[in-house]
Amino acid sequence: MNDRPENDRPVTLADEHARGWSPAAARSRFREGLTGPTAGVAAGHTQANLIAVPADWAYEMLLFCQRNPKPCPVLDVTDAGSATTVLADGADLRTDLPRYRVWENGELVDQPTDVRAHWRGDLVSFLIGCSFTFEWALTAAGVPLRHVEQGRNVPMYVTTRPCRPGGRLRGPMVVSMRPVPPRRLGAAIRESSLLPAVHGGPVHCGAPSGLGIDDLGRPDFGDPVDLQPDDIPVFWACGVTPQAAVMASRPPFAITHAPGQMFLTDARDEQYRVA
Amino acid sequence: MNDRPENDRPVTLADEHARGWSPAAARSRFREGLTGPTAGVAAGHTQANLIAVPADWAYEMLLFCQRNPKPCPVLDVTDAGSATTVLADGADLRTDLPRYRVWENGELVDQPTDVRAHWRGDLVSFLIGCSFTFEWALTAAGVPLRHVEQGRNVPMYVTTRPCRPGGRLRGPMVVSMRPVPPRRLGAAIRESSLLPAVHGGPVHCGAPSGLGIDDLGRPDFGDPVDLQPDDIPVFWACGVTPQAAVMASRPPFAITHAPGQMFLTDARDEQYRVA
Repeated sequence: MNDRPENDRPVTLADEHARGWSPAAARSRFREGLTGPTAGVAAGHTQANLIAVPADWAYEMLLFCQRNPKPCPVLDVTDAGSATTVLADGADLRTDLPRYRVWENGELVDQPTDVRAHWRGDLVSFLIGCSFTFEWALTAAGVPLRHVEQGRNVPMYVTTRPCRPGGRLRGPMVVSMRPVPPRRLGAAIRESSLLPAVHGGPVHCGAPSGLGIDDLGRPDFGDPVDLQPDDIPVFWACGVTPQAAVMASRPPFAITHAPGQMFLTDARDEQYRVA
Repeated sequence: MNDRPENDRPVTLADEHARGWSPAAARSRFREGLTGPTAGVAAGHTQANLIAVPADWAYEMLLFCQRNPKPCPVLDVTDAGSATTVLADGADLRTDLPRYRVWENGELVDQPTDVRAHWRGDLVSFLIGCSFTFEWALTAAGVPLRHVEQGRNVPMYVTTRPCRPGGRLRGPMVVSMRPVPPRRLGAAIRESSLLPAVHGGPVHCGAPSGLGIDDLGRPDFGDPVDLQPDDIPVFWACGVTPQAAVMASRPPFAITHAPGQMFLTDARDEQYRVA
């Protein structure tokens, strides 16, 4: 599944220019065709995963999200056919993400940068919290971000931990992994826990085998990231989980973001901090 | 709406016996006919609001809850027709609450202690977080609970603040009010904020007119509570909000709990604490 199109250029925290963009400026550039992972873009603004399904699957998708709030914290649900969201003034969900994935019967059929040609009037879009949101809080608390240091997309893994089904929708939980030095583990857990709308605290720390992950060097999505000596792998529930549910449950049609290439909202991360 | 049946006996924190019940023991007593407000029952266990609607209203109810997470934090959704929940082993949602309300076209038609005669195979039940859950955290932090001290149900008010509609469902936010001494206000806000699944931090502090409430002495549900000198009225979003939506939106049928007379789950309050 590690089929990132060749022309995707990483945009990372290291890119100070993208870091300072407004969300509207970022959306505009993505609309014009810029692609790549969005970690670090428009600092302090909330990023979101996208999954759009036909209206006759919308209840089950919302139920699946409610029953699996760690991987699928819902930030907004659109009305059927609408490409707008209360989270981003003037945004068009069909054009404003860097890259999309189009699914038919659970199979990936296209990865365009614009989905106007695929759009349908019965699509209900779900915007789901993204762990990139709490990376600012981690950074502020002194937690290093290895994938950003290494200029890579965050690594994501399909686990053997099943989600609780919602009607016809079922599938495994997907996680993102960040290596954390032991002396920063408390801060990483605490800071992310205070942001439950963007996955909250980790679901697992330490041995990858606890989640059925065989090899950290071979993520299912994103890039492998090198651990420093003593780093502990820390796993957070990931908003790519609905894509794993699409693969497992095979709804007739779906549109999602490409892993790591998120929707930039106008919301500020602090809005989702509980205390 | 202050039509509490005459035979309801308050069960409060002051009742040390009820405080020590297990959730299963409390459900058993309610199943046998005991009624009354449940604040203080089965200390440390999570209480929940109930709203059951026909399956063809379930998506809109879930959407309404997602769009209004402060008043309507969803803890569980049942499959259509099922009276069981993952939150309480062996419980029957048709019999195990102290008192119910039965609604037809938005009108209250019955307030029985058992709804087996009203049950339908197409009902989807929503269990929604309840502010009674954070009262233990408030008590532990030294925040006095005036309604408990005074042996009354918590006062609840219909506000002029509209919820964001979900399809056909719309209505005003309902709030509960607790008077808090100024020196405990920080603790009250902090402790409740750490429990976002049970309404989280307050939506308003101070002048009731900020929510369009004319007279604290005349709550729409529950009992009036006396403020001590200097007490600040603190308002939390309330799980009776779906009942206000039923009144405003008039679905053909619904079953809810009676305000203040909640469903006792087996979950522990700490499970919903984010840090």
